[in-house]
Amino acid sequence: MTALPALRPRSGAGVAERLARSTAATEGIGMATDDVPGWLAARTRARPARVRRIPFAELDGWSFADDTGDLRHHSGRFFSVEGLHVVRPDGDWQQPIIMQPEIGILGILAKEFDGTLHFLMQAKMEPGNPHLVQLSPTVQATRSNYTKAHGGAQVKYLEYFLHRGQVLTDVLQSEHGEWFFQKRNRNMIVEVDGDVPVDDDFRWLTLGQLGALLNQDNVVNMDARTVLASASMTHPEPRALLSDTELLSWFTGERTRLDVRARRIPLRQVSGWLRDAHSIHRADHRFFRVVAVAVEGAAREVSSWTQPLFEPVGPGVVGFAYRTFGGVPHVLVHALAEGGLLDTAELGPTVQYVPANHAHLPSVRRPPFLDLMLDAPPDRIRYAAVHSEEGGRFLNAESRYLIVETDESTTPAQPPPGYHWITPGQLNWLAGHSHYVNVQARTLLAALNTRAADLDHEHRRP
Amino acid sequence: MTALPALRPRSGAGVAERLARSTAATEGIGMATDDVPGWLAARTRARPARVRRIPFAELDGWSFADDTGDLRHHSGRFFSVEGLHVVRPDGDWQQPIIMQPEIGILGILAKEFDGTLHFLMQAKMEPGNPHLVQLSPTVQATRSNYTKAHGGAQVKYLEYFLHRGQVLTDVLQSEHGEWFFQKRNRNMIVEVDGDVPVDDDFRWLTLGQLGALLNQDNVVNMDARTVLASASMTHPEPRALLSDTELLSWFTGERTRLDVRARRIPLRQVSGWLRDAHSIHRADHRFFRVVAVAVEGAAREVSSWTQPLFEPVGPGVVGFAYRTFGGVPHVLVHALAEGGLLDTAELGPTVQYVPANHAHLPSVRRPPFLDLMLDAPPDRIRYAAVHSEEGGRFLNAESRYLIVETDESTTPAQPPPGYHWITPGQLNWLAGHSHYVNVQARTLLAALNTRAADLDHEHRRP
Repeated sequence: MTALPALRPRSGAGVAERLARSTAATEGIGMATDDVPGWLAARTRARPARVRRIPFAELDGWSFADDTGDLRHHSGRFFSVEGLHVVRPDGDWQQPIIMQPEIGILGILAKEFDGTLHFLMQAKMEPGNPHLVQLSPTVQATRSNYTKAHGGAQVKYLEYFLHRGQVLTDVLQSEHGEWFFQKRNRNMIVEVDGDVPVDDDFRWLTLGQLGALLNQDNVVNMDARTVLASASMTHPEPRALLSDTELLSWFTGERTRLDVRARRIPLRQVSGWLRDAHSIHRADHRFFRVVAVAVEGAAREVSSWTQPLFEPVGPGVVGFAYRTFGGVPHVLVHALAEGGLLDTAELGPTVQYVPANHAHLPSVRRPPFLDLMLDAPPDRIRYAAVHSEEGGRFLNAESRYLIVETDESTTPAQPPPGYHWITPGQLNWLAGHSHYVNVQARTLLAALNTRAADLDHEHRRP
Repeated sequence: MTALPALRPRSGAGVAERLARSTAATEGIGMATDDVPGWLAARTRARPARVRRIPFAELDGWSFADDTGDLRHHSGRFFSVEGLHVVRPDGDWQQPIIMQPEIGILGILAKEFDGTLHFLMQAKMEPGNPHLVQLSPTVQATRSNYTKAHGGAQVKYLEYFLHRGQVLTDVLQSEHGEWFFQKRNRNMIVEVDGDVPVDDDFRWLTLGQLGALLNQDNVVNMDARTVLASASMTHPEPRALLSDTELLSWFTGERTRLDVRARRIPLRQVSGWLRDAHSIHRADHRFFRVVAVAVEGAAREVSSWTQPLFEPVGPGVVGFAYRTFGGVPHVLVHALAEGGLLDTAELGPTVQYVPANHAHLPSVRRPPFLDLMLDAPPDRIRYAAVHSEEGGRFLNAESRYLIVETDESTTPAQPPPGYHWITPGQLNWLAGHSHYVNVQARTLLAALNTRAADLDHEHRRP
């Protein structure tokens, strides 16, 4: 007779409370928050890397396939640039798209010190990052990374995410549906008990410290932000404008209504885009271009390499309109269909645009709520920081992320079709599952989860 | 100044309790449970229909496309039969597949009578159903139905699901991933207050009555079963073998591990399948065949029509192994990859096979746990009934659905890879979201939700 297995509480009692304690901890057992940017700069200097634009012809191991024109690595691994034909009821278009069918791991290791959870963050260089080195998860590994397609070094700490530790968060999340075809990564937080050797490029930080750092420009990378968004926090909101069932029903209706079909096509066939020696771009130079870079002297799995990157044509603006109803905070989400999403639509921020793409439009045809973010008076801004998207795929893909307090005159309680007011807790609840919250909304959710956003502002006014 | 909108409880307080009250109600205000099968038979006689197998050449409005060989309706609507190439790490195959990209509505109307929720069920004929008429949701409508591609009559009660009523459940659920390509339907329960005119083909029944009817063969159709599974019931299980977070993490790992790629191909190119005048079938006659039928004299939107149907080569066996751990019921779920699922894998029952497909295999190579279901002693069977799958697409697709109590010797607490023990409440929680629970597991969940399954059996033994 084997021993009966032990039952455990379904709710994983105490995790949200322990995360809240870490959020309240403005300093931890390790590096002071104020020292982190300097440490990132020092890590950059310690192993200086140079990122240089090159023509496609200088790519090493990458080439355009004779038949399809797709841009691929000769190993068949990493990723490829192919074509996508997106059909929506209001029109259709073609574009280059990144194909990367493997599911990678974005994992943050957690450990309690003096009763407070700390998170092991890495100073990691990515060629597309504005400052090159940003704070990233403990592990940020494509399957090619950890099966050694690079032919490079071991991924440090990976074994904690494959074999051991107590899982606090583990969910597949989508990434940029306008640039990736059905890309997902596994977002994990794993807690360990025993001693963890800490390498030079790693530091233990509390959620409170990470929240403070999320208020600075280009410090916390996208991969870290999405993992922080996926953690199940305490948001004490028993009441909301919509019950959870009504919220799911509204979103089910939006997903039913937003009819988007996407079909892969050879890159060669993509119409409206031109390829020259240095880039693939639209004839009107809107949206983004595909470029190539050489990375030299980097302290990564391999010390130098070349690769393609997607480069948006200008900085983006990503923001939530924010209001309180009955004292309960709500943000205005937008059910947003993107051609590269596996399941049609996800909840995005109120605003998610590159203004340069719409500069030629008359004001009445500009994207809804965009001017509300561009023209927000400083005293209504509850969160603002510039962040860049995944620097391993995107070059200088910076956006100003905002949470702006608005009112009935600009953002009515009864919003236009496709939008709804939901609470940060509801957004966090949905981010515990796949297919609900897009990657831009998850950056803003990370700011809400870690209290980087100053939602209590009004209550502290004299 | 507009009035501030009212907040409501996020949890939609009271719904699960009201559903539980309806489950406890073994009779309702309308028809007695015992009279329902006779009523279905009477409705069949009232408007007799005849379903006759025909050669493909006699299909009216349907034909094989010259270029692709796909079987399509000339309107471009309803559905089409195309080809699919499925690639898994353990091999690949090609097969015909049903393409039906539209999202339809499966909706049950609910209303309280004498303090107990009742559900408006329809006596509906589907050509592929063994008894033709089964108990179905109030509304069972493809988009073609309600946008009138049939050129037929109005869909009764549809307006409640499009415009009004209090939503109790509203979630997109997948259907058979081995026969459908990325098919989803909207599973809805909507409650109304006012008077509802009740047509001859409709009756108000309690969940307790539906539970009793789920114990009978071929009475409650698949569409009704999946909606009943999606309702959020009370399963009082604060503890389980896995915490909810551990369950999600295990499933995320399975979804990452189960690498399935499916690519649409022209039906003409599907290898290993033959087409003759009457069917498309595998050379070895395993799995299923595509056939055509003529339906005459039916009381549906139109009174006669022809259509293709998928017909499995034999009856299936679908079952959960069931055990209690620490007094808490658990069922053994199987993370199951199917080529037609939008997101790779969903949780299926312990067993989901057509035994005839495996009859030629030596016993050591037979599917795991299958014999446990086939040879279950009667005193270990907690649920057993024959149900058929969607009769509008599948002909005589009958399976014996079982929940069988097992023990450590056959189904260890530490199950083999790909399987895990979870509670009925955990299964029900996951069925509140898309992409988690497959349609066969949802039939068994409907039996658990309505207490059709006799899990308390052991406690009642002398």
